[in-house]
Amino acid sequence: MDLPTPMRQALDLAQRAIGLSEPNPRVGCVIVGADGAVLGQGHTQHAGGPHAEIAALQDAAAAGHDVRGATAFVTLEPCSHHGRTGPCCDALAAAGIGRVVASCTDPNPLVAGKGFARLCAAGVAIDVGPGEAETQVLNPGFFSRMQRGRPWVRAKIAASLDGKTALDDGRSQWITSEPARRDGHAWRARATAVLTGIGTVLQDDPRLDVRLVPAARQPDLVLVDSRLEVPSTARLFSAAQRRVRIYCAVPDSPRRAELEALGAEVIALPNAGGKVDLAAMLADLGRREVNELHVEAGFKLNGSLVREGLVDEWLVYLAPKLLGQGQGIAAFGPLPGLEAAPALDFGAIERIGPDLRIVARATPADRG
Amino acid sequence: MDLPTPMRQALDLAQRAIGLSEPNPRVGCVIVGADGAVLGQGHTQHAGGPHAEIAALQDAAAAGHDVRGATAFVTLEPCSHHGRTGPCCDALAAAGIGRVVASCTDPNPLVAGKGFARLCAAGVAIDVGPGEAETQVLNPGFFSRMQRGRPWVRAKIAASLDGKTALDDGRSQWITSEPARRDGHAWRARATAVLTGIGTVLQDDPRLDVRLVPAARQPDLVLVDSRLEVPSTARLFSAAQRRVRIYCAVPDSPRRAELEALGAEVIALPNAGGKVDLAAMLADLGRREVNELHVEAGFKLNGSLVREGLVDEWLVYLAPKLLGQGQGIAAFGPLPGLEAAPALDFGAIERIGPDLRIVARATPADRG
Repeated sequence: MDLPTPMRQALDLAQRAIGLSEPNPRVGCVIVGADGAVLGQGHTQHAGGPHAEIAALQDAAAAGHDVRGATAFVTLEPCSHHGRTGPCCDALAAAGIGRVVASCTDPNPLVAGKGFARLCAAGVAIDVGPGEAETQVLNPGFFSRMQRGRPWVRAKIAASLDGKTALDDGRSQWITSEPARRDGHAWRARATAVLTGIGTVLQDDPRLDVRLVPAARQPDLVLVDSRLEVPSTARLFSAAQRRVRIYCAVPDSPRRAELEALGAEVIALPNAGGKVDLAAMLADLGRREVNELHVEAGFKLNGSLVREGLVDEWLVYLAPKLLGQGQGIAAFGPLPGLEAAPALDFGAIERIGPDLRIVARATPADRG
Repeated sequence: MDLPTPMRQALDLAQRAIGLSEPNPRVGCVIVGADGAVLGQGHTQHAGGPHAEIAALQDAAAAGHDVRGATAFVTLEPCSHHGRTGPCCDALAAAGIGRVVASCTDPNPLVAGKGFARLCAAGVAIDVGPGEAETQVLNPGFFSRMQRGRPWVRAKIAASLDGKTALDDGRSQWITSEPARRDGHAWRARATAVLTGIGTVLQDDPRLDVRLVPAARQPDLVLVDSRLEVPSTARLFSAAQRRVRIYCAVPDSPRRAELEALGAEVIALPNAGGKVDLAAMLADLGRREVNELHVEAGFKLNGSLVREGLVDEWLVYLAPKLLGQGQGIAAFGPLPGLEAAPALDFGAIERIGPDLRIVARATPADRG
């Protein structure tokens, strides 16, 4: 089905909120008059800033346009709650908007439909549906958090064509090309948080911030470190302006205070095996408003995530080379049979410089 | 540079010789009159049948067209020797062809230019060049055999996204989809010979013939079996109408006579380590007119081929799944560093059913 042009424009606007609006969803809004002229447009700004509808109303007001009786195309149900900002549905009604066309209802089952109900009660006509699939694709993290209570987990891999992510001794810099690494930073930038494990910190001492592409904000850093082994000198503490959360399995470690003094938040979530309870960690990250969680970990943590069915999407950069021997993508198994292999669907495949970028999503049955 | 239309047509015709003309090259020929009308066209037929030029002359004669003074566009230098058929250059000159446009000279340095010289001596005008790159891409095996004295070696892999070709116990049926397996048979069909190792025979007992796509001929079967362990009941002996060659490292095995009784040719080419000398085997296969050698082997033989720099091209089918633990693509290494990794260039990337097909060629420096 072809989308109405203003909805297509609103979806394009919503794209601009990627990397900006965290933890709010990426939403666009276009207000058109009876003659189809665009009166105002906007998208979600940084958290605490205006939502798309408010931005569009402000845009129309700044241009001196009268929006009474106009139609607002918005890619998500206008909010009905007082969060960091006032309810958008009230603002639309107060401005005299005559009709709202929305892509979909709010994915949070507790609030879904309330915005529409309030608009309706205020005499605003409502259409819902066009652009729903596009909005979901654009906001996998927000939908995941609202519907499943946990982030959308995207695991990034840089590997040789034969699936090796490092030599046996851990050397991995660099398997993929500079364009692929820059592309990887763009994916970091769109995530609410970047996750890694203590193995990667001890092996590579990465900063895991966004440096190779412009960024409106730095994603949070999440570290899985069961025994709080991260050195205070680790470079991940050197990246400014971001939150660092460390999940551990040792409630009463003396290291805790040292790490908190570095500005990190330390959260103990042990499982029965003395490791971090990864599913509980994701639920906690969901409560902390993490939408997309970008994982850059080694084969051990990746393997644990796979075993628990917690990876929703793989972002795999394959370099045109063979390493023969070395660390793999994810250590799990042995499987009882081929039919037990976690099943994926290939999404977009792109060449990035000399490398190949493969997006693969867990098939719905394999997605927790 | 845009190709002349008749040369484009000749290249299209040459494609039809794939899987048919072994061990002859895939060549097309289009004869056009002074007004540009096509008078005759043809491509290389099965070995012993007419070459492209003869097929085109026969086509013109059957249509009653006079080719005197016409131009023949041919994708390779017309042959000047008496092989299974008479020299094409003489036939073109005898037919009164006024001009020959050829994509390139014969890659065999011992005969290159002789066809042109004879045409020239007979008063035929010669142009060489348009379509040279296309002809080389179409005939990697023929060019390899003529220029390097060995086949073009293409290793076919079916793997999970994390580079596993089988579970640890060897189970591999099936990692990839039926469309991918059918596509793999089409690549078998274009090869002069299919090569495998004794490990694969003992593990999977495959037939390795062309069944899932139509085939004008069955490729030969080459088995690397150092100690002649292949059972006489192996299914690879059940495929009709093909040559089976077994390379071993034991010159005087009692098994030899048994295998010869099954119709196999047994060739002893031991190296110092008591294994088959793979480079010598390829040279031998080159002498036996193998153009493209399609390898379907396990990670051990693949690893040996990589170590010796003998793989020219990888044909990798990646299935959208993870196996975690299992056999890899090629067992070699450990490498002293990442920079020592055999370098490839990605070629065509295609989706085949749910799977991905990746063609990667050894970069010229890494090609032996």
